[in-house]
Amino acid sequence: MINLILSSCSSLLLFLSLISFITSPTAISAQGVWPKPRTLSWPNPLATILSPTFTISSPYHQHLSPAVNRYRIQIVTEHHRPLVPPPVNLSNSSPPLRTLTITVKDLTSSLRHSADESYTLIIPTASPTANLTAETVWGAMRGLESFSQLVWGSKPLLVSVGLYIWDSPLFEHRGIILDTSRNYYPVDDILRTIKAMSANKLNVFHWHITDSHSFPLVLPSEPDLAAKGSYGNDMLYSPHDVARIVEFGLEHGVRVLPEIDSPAHTGSWAEAYPDIVTCANMFWWPAESQWADRLASEPGTGQLNPLNPKTYQVLKNVIGDTVALFPEPFYHAGGDEIIPGCWKADPAIQSFLSKNGTLSQLLETFVNSTFPYLVSLNRTVVYWEDILLDNNIKVDPSFLPPEHTILQTWNNGPNNTKLIVSSGYRAIVSSSEFYYLDCGHGGFLGNDSQYDPPPTSGNSGDGGSWCGPFKTWQTIYNYDIAYGLTPEETKLVLGGEVALWSEQADPTVLDVRIWPRASAMAETLWSGNKDESGKKRYAEAMDRLNEWRQRMVTKGIRAEPLQPLWCVKNPGMCNTVHPSA
Amino acid sequence: MINLILSSCSSLLLFLSLISFITSPTAISAQGVWPKPRTLSWPNPLATILSPTFTISSPYHQHLSPAVNRYRIQIVTEHHRPLVPPPVNLSNSSPPLRTLTITVKDLTSSLRHSADESYTLIIPTASPTANLTAETVWGAMRGLESFSQLVWGSKPLLVSVGLYIWDSPLFEHRGIILDTSRNYYPVDDILRTIKAMSANKLNVFHWHITDSHSFPLVLPSEPDLAAKGSYGNDMLYSPHDVARIVEFGLEHGVRVLPEIDSPAHTGSWAEAYPDIVTCANMFWWPAESQWADRLASEPGTGQLNPLNPKTYQVLKNVIGDTVALFPEPFYHAGGDEIIPGCWKADPAIQSFLSKNGTLSQLLETFVNSTFPYLVSLNRTVVYWEDILLDNNIKVDPSFLPPEHTILQTWNNGPNNTKLIVSSGYRAIVSSSEFYYLDCGHGGFLGNDSQYDPPPTSGNSGDGGSWCGPFKTWQTIYNYDIAYGLTPEETKLVLGGEVALWSEQADPTVLDVRIWPRASAMAETLWSGNKDESGKKRYAEAMDRLNEWRQRMVTKGIRAEPLQPLWCVKNPGMCNTVHPSA
Repeated sequence: MINLILSSCSSLLLFLSLISFITSPTAISAQGVWPKPRTLSWPNPLATILSPTFTISSPYHQHLSPAVNRYRIQIVTEHHRPLVPPPVNLSNSSPPLRTLTITVKDLTSSLRHSADESYTLIIPTASPTANLTAETVWGAMRGLESFSQLVWGSKPLLVSVGLYIWDSPLFEHRGIILDTSRNYYPVDDILRTIKAMSANKLNVFHWHITDSHSFPLVLPSEPDLAAKGSYGNDMLYSPHDVARIVEFGLEHGVRVLPEIDSPAHTGSWAEAYPDIVTCANMFWWPAESQWADRLASEPGTGQLNPLNPKTYQVLKNVIGDTVALFPEPFYHAGGDEIIPGCWKADPAIQSFLSKNGTLSQLLETFVNSTFPYLVSLNRTVVYWEDILLDNNIKVDPSFLPPEHTILQTWNNGPNNTKLIVSSGYRAIVSSSEFYYLDCGHGGFLGNDSQYDPPPTSGNSGDGGSWCGPFKTWQTIYNYDIAYGLTPEETKLVLGGEVALWSEQADPTVLDVRIWPRASAMAETLWSGNKDESGKKRYAEAMDRLNEWRQRMVTKGIRAEPLQPLWCVKNPGMCNTVHPSA
Repeated sequence: MINLILSSCSSLLLFLSLISFITSPTAISAQGVWPKPRTLSWPNPLATILSPTFTISSPYHQHLSPAVNRYRIQIVTEHHRPLVPPPVNLSNSSPPLRTLTITVKDLTSSLRHSADESYTLIIPTASPTANLTAETVWGAMRGLESFSQLVWGSKPLLVSVGLYIWDSPLFEHRGIILDTSRNYYPVDDILRTIKAMSANKLNVFHWHITDSHSFPLVLPSEPDLAAKGSYGNDMLYSPHDVARIVEFGLEHGVRVLPEIDSPAHTGSWAEAYPDIVTCANMFWWPAESQWADRLASEPGTGQLNPLNPKTYQVLKNVIGDTVALFPEPFYHAGGDEIIPGCWKADPAIQSFLSKNGTLSQLLETFVNSTFPYLVSLNRTVVYWEDILLDNNIKVDPSFLPPEHTILQTWNNGPNNTKLIVSSGYRAIVSSSEFYYLDCGHGGFLGNDSQYDPPPTSGNSGDGGSWCGPFKTWQTIYNYDIAYGLTPEETKLVLGGEVALWSEQADPTVLDVRIWPRASAMAETLWSGNKDESGKKRYAEAMDRLNEWRQRMVTKGIRAEPLQPLWCVKNPGMCNTVHPSA
């Protein structure tokens, strides 16, 4: 990682040779960029006026040009008023900034994993022109966002000058999972989320589209799945909607990665095809039965039947249509939480098992009937870690060649990440203990007697949420997703995703559950969570995140507050100086 | 309590003698009223059409008449579509319902504690007129709300018929605390909250207006307190704003109970009067000091100086103005969390203590200089329990005669309620373990190392919130505020209040933090949390609360979801049948 930084820093070193000292962290943090750039030099905290005729000059590009136009409008209309006035002086000698000139070295690079997102931004003191250079249009979008955050005020607008940024993410995969099956989100909610992701330099919208609860995705080859399996005609995603979301993602530098979870989490498929789904519409955990004999991980039963040939007819149509709708080279095929009891409820499977067949063999059959097809469609297949690590039902690694497979971890924190990468697989980290945004609001089951405690018991425990407690922004910010890995293993960690599962979420809480906590991950994965001395920087980050949260609210993102406004206006006064206060 | 029910039930008994059987709970719950009425009889689940010329006939009353007008418009425009279609048949023999006739026995009863809120609602099968009778206009408002919830659909609107309700709350004080000092809420947010309270038959908006963080209340006699102590000119409550809120409360049957917390929680007063506040603007818990030596319970220091005569000059102006602004006969004077270190920071107090004076004597001086004045203004004074129960600083009970004093409990669950009522004081219950809506989102302190755990530690504990975990709707619903009390003691429990403290709340999260969890308390305090057999009814309540939450969302209240829509549409399927799942 260090080598990467040094090799990319030659232009910085040139710049540094021209100036005498590096600015103090305080001055930088006052008028900052979130996530904090990898390298920001601003020796004298000076600003100049943004010219009323400010323009952005850029090469034409199908997706960059709309972004340039959007940022130009945003920059001159946003009028951000910092809660803590930045200690910045107006430069006496600087002309108004009239132009931001964008240079892109490779206009052909597509939006995909490992697309180069680096950029260099120079806003000089003595010139009316700032320069943004990037390898790709996606890096240019990142630089545009940083530039936009360096403009504030109104009548006149001010912009930082004498400033140099070289920037590039530590991790290439930085995403948010949204579950649109358990509850539905209108397209506008998804677009607003992608827009906010772009402002936080997050680049993967992992769309958990379908599950047992509803199937909202309209697929041309299998229209009945949504027609019968969705929550209703007003709760669908049409091909036109998907195209709009994908295009919106491209114009914001955000990949749209579809997940069609299977073979578990497919109860909704039974509305159209009851014969390909085992245990559908049954009570999830019958009375008198053990936890091991439940039919699903949570209410909403149903798993695709791996022994029914029709399963694969439907699945190939689903995969084919989904691949056609989503240009993204990654395809998330699910593979989590296959529950033995559900397959065992099927007579054909019972017969198979009685002849010494195993549940894992069933899963291998399923994988072998779908994975090669996905690979033939030039997709890298992402599975939840369960497909290899589950205690009961898992496939032999030989079915999943690492060059075509990525595993996403959600259990056991860094331990499972280590298991995955030490086996030679690439990993996406979504450890539930750190990255599950829905956790900590109690369980969603009805008739749950644990919430009827003796009233003398007082506070205790995690409140009944299996993944409680609530993940604070600090918990997320401090998580090191490559903890305990060797440098070689670390290279296999593509990045991370925070997740909003929707058992207890829908449009009413979408913004407040995601923001600003996803911003915390965004910074850690972009530039880390430590200062130059290697010390965790959460104390300093709090003040910057307070400002950034406020700026998101003025952008129309309903990000939740972290502190009283008094704390924001009095930086440091709401800190503790005692360990584990 | 039983006697009360029986004596109020004579008209029900008359009605029952005319019908043959009581409807099943299932039929009632399908098209329900939240909170569930004390007595609802609907032998045949029938509906009729609400006439396009539907009107409400009512005596004129300054506050009831606007409510009638509002409900008439709401009833014909809301077009509620139940998520689970109620198993109701259209009556063949019923005429369209043309009129709701309201009869109020006493039009002069003011909105105050113990105002009669009972009502009787009869919607006959064979008449175009329904009848709502109530002792007071406040009871009539409760009945109007119930009637409005019995109307649904569109083209045509339908209304339940053959239905009888007698209703009256179990507890007379049912409130919500909102803290507008730590973060500010615009007036419209407060009005929307009061409107939602009224829809839930909650009747006390406990307005924690001021605290150490800001003083947003503009007082004519002490204008500098807000001018200097508020967050800014756009974050004030003017006398006109207060009048609007109080009047809005009257038109919704919601009392507006002001709290001016003192002598602690007054740091913001120091902006105008630095000399009457000890330890203002100091770092709250200095390094190297013990927790016992901190200066405040949380960041934001400052306590009124009980030895400075000017303190009482200012306070009397504050009290006088507040009493003039708020007609409510209760006045909340605070009295919580007086921290020794803050008073000890003052030289005059140091001198007093060195002469064998005690901190409790200082508090007694303070109470004796304010409490009699409040009583002289015909106010019943509410204090937080700390004023009598704090370990370090408390007054002798002789300073607080029970006939003029109410204590609000927030610690130790039912234990402190018992302490309060067994001492002869009336109690308002806000046990933090059950009723604090802000809890469970982690701590708000900056630089808090507890959120940097070894990443192998996984989930555990309450997430660092002192009052974690999150209080689920079931936790709130199941809490029995009179647990462990004798019948005589129970009479001293006026009711309860859920609280939204605003360290981590502001307008972005207002609705989602309060609703529908406050609805859970609303039902428990109105009609209890048990069915006719004495069994807790949280399983059945879940389905009804899902519907009610959805109806609140369509009313513009951003109430958070409790379950996937699939669970709502498949009642019972997301239950557990296993204890403590």
